[in-house]
Amino acid sequence: MQKKPFFPARRVFITSAGSVVGHKEKKGPLGALFDLGGDDRFGKDSWEKAEAEMQRLALGIAMRKAELVEGDLDLLVAGDLVNQCVSSSYGLLGYRIPFLGLFGACSTCAEGLLLATLATASVCRRCAAVTSSHFCTAERQFRYPLEYGGQRTPTAQWTVTGSGAFIVSSRPGDAQRTTGVYVPEILDVMPGCIVDRGITDAANMGAAMAPAAADTILRYRDSGCLGDEILFVTGDLGAEGSAILYDLLRAQRLDIEDRHTDCGLRIYHRDAADAHAGASGCGCSAVVLAAELLEMVKSGEIAEMCFLATGALMNTAAVQQGQSIPGIAHLVHIRGVRRDTVCDGQTE
Amino acid sequence: MQKKPFFPARRVFITSAGSVVGHKEKKGPLGALFDLGGDDRFGKDSWEKAEAEMQRLALGIAMRKAELVEGDLDLLVAGDLVNQCVSSSYGLLGYRIPFLGLFGACSTCAEGLLLATLATASVCRRCAAVTSSHFCTAERQFRYPLEYGGQRTPTAQWTVTGSGAFIVSSRPGDAQRTTGVYVPEILDVMPGCIVDRGITDAANMGAAMAPAAADTILRYRDSGCLGDEILFVTGDLGAEGSAILYDLLRAQRLDIEDRHTDCGLRIYHRDAADAHAGASGCGCSAVVLAAELLEMVKSGEIAEMCFLATGALMNTAAVQQGQSIPGIAHLVHIRGVRRDTVCDGQTE
Repeated sequence: MQKKPFFPARRVFITSAGSVVGHKEKKGPLGALFDLGGDDRFGKDSWEKAEAEMQRLALGIAMRKAELVEGDLDLLVAGDLVNQCVSSSYGLLGYRIPFLGLFGACSTCAEGLLLATLATASVCRRCAAVTSSHFCTAERQFRYPLEYGGQRTPTAQWTVTGSGAFIVSSRPGDAQRTTGVYVPEILDVMPGCIVDRGITDAANMGAAMAPAAADTILRYRDSGCLGDEILFVTGDLGAEGSAILYDLLRAQRLDIEDRHTDCGLRIYHRDAADAHAGASGCGCSAVVLAAELLEMVKSGEIAEMCFLATGALMNTAAVQQGQSIPGIAHLVHIRGVRRDTVCDGQTE
Repeated sequence: MQKKPFFPARRVFITSAGSVVGHKEKKGPLGALFDLGGDDRFGKDSWEKAEAEMQRLALGIAMRKAELVEGDLDLLVAGDLVNQCVSSSYGLLGYRIPFLGLFGACSTCAEGLLLATLATASVCRRCAAVTSSHFCTAERQFRYPLEYGGQRTPTAQWTVTGSGAFIVSSRPGDAQRTTGVYVPEILDVMPGCIVDRGITDAANMGAAMAPAAADTILRYRDSGCLGDEILFVTGDLGAEGSAILYDLLRAQRLDIEDRHTDCGLRIYHRDAADAHAGASGCGCSAVVLAAELLEMVKSGEIAEMCFLATGALMNTAAVQQGQSIPGIAHLVHIRGVRRDTVCDGQTE
């Protein structure tokens, strides 16, 4: 196994992002930051169609911000939680851009950015990465009918209704056209290994995913790439999973509690109804990264971060057949670089 | 949109492949070519676990043929048809190799080879691409309970029980260690766009996917990369979809009927019970490519081919909600190169 992260051969930047959310997310502490939101239906007659529509809107917003049209994008990578990832295929159908479908569960945002980095550093000018989740599609597909009023356990997380889209570009001109003092540059990426620690409780995804996050962070540390100042951002471990992550890492002599945040703990107010251990879903880390964290990188508030979206690689049939829930975590190392230094050593 | 295919920056080879199939496939005309097969259960107590086991076995075989151990592989890309792609995550869980999950429906084999090419040409030494399908998991997930004895329509296809795994390497030493006079080299790849022509009949996947195959082939022709001698191999259009493909291409002044074959028409005897329009499933193109076509490249019988696996990007909920079935087709351009010329211009 490769011991090092993957370093792109060309400099690669996140030059634009779009975020679209539902009403619960809009009412949360980050509400004002999202590009679009406040409704869960988006004018559609099914939740599945509404989720697809969010992806369409999020990519459109990201493209508009970067002043790009379809022909400017060479590749689109996208995935979601709905069976056979149809939110992506129906949502992005209208864009005539070569498309690669991903399945990474809630790690999809990081997986998409990782692949966009590899593609943009080698064969593409620009690649878009898109993902989404919707509380109503996820709830009825993975758990219970929406009409069913079951009690939620304290470790349960609330699936975010939201979609995030990112434009990854290797063109210095694109980076220079961004707003903000700093441009988010992807320095390196590290794909995760599948990790199974025997968790069988489908209402405790944090516990299923935390070992995968720990595994990737430790592999990254062992590669020698981990600076002392890097902020760790996990996708949707929630309160339960974050606590488990700290314990697992402390056992390996790494303490990250003071420099860690979890997107699942940022998007809802702590007293939001039924959010319990926090938020989850592919959309969770995608919209928090798009609307809040990348803006903090651009303003200089965050200098450098390891963004780790985590996923639980199960389905309902597997859980019913008694299988445990494996997790995965992909890492994307992002640093803010001064916009006026972008041209250094880079040819357009 | 990028008008050209993606050309890898380093030479990339398919240095090994493994194929595992079920009993219907083993009894077919290619039966003797598969590495392992003849049973549909693989010692497991559910069809889903059996499908996962096929992936595990297929990758193990491909690694053994190439004399590789886990540490020699830097990346694993895999996907399947089962909800949330769990055949891949459970099947490949035991391999400690960084993993990226894909969803491309029946186009997954080509999508995996495409991404393995991009990764191997830039950041990896070697990458494995794996996919599978199983008649019993697909039938009960997408169509009817297995016990239900519904009549199948003439356009229906039979989902292949099988898994194919491929090792893609950029190391000339790996290519030189292969058997055969020629080594399959991936010259370029072209990801497909999502194409929706309004097909709503879930028992006619060939019709849903043929427009996507035509779209990718025409984009490839327009890029100027299409030689006159290239064989076209589609994944699982079957009899119906192949006929539609010829018609669509003839309308654009391209006739490929004399130099086209479809994996879905090669794997079962024409009079095999219920195979009707041919075979389908992620496993179909994967096992035919692994067991038959790559061997023909290695012997020189096939000089050059465009391998296009096609996928139908739907799920049952979408079809029930009245949505049409979009298709996609990714292209992988493979040529046999003499083994003794592999070192040319390539550094280990």
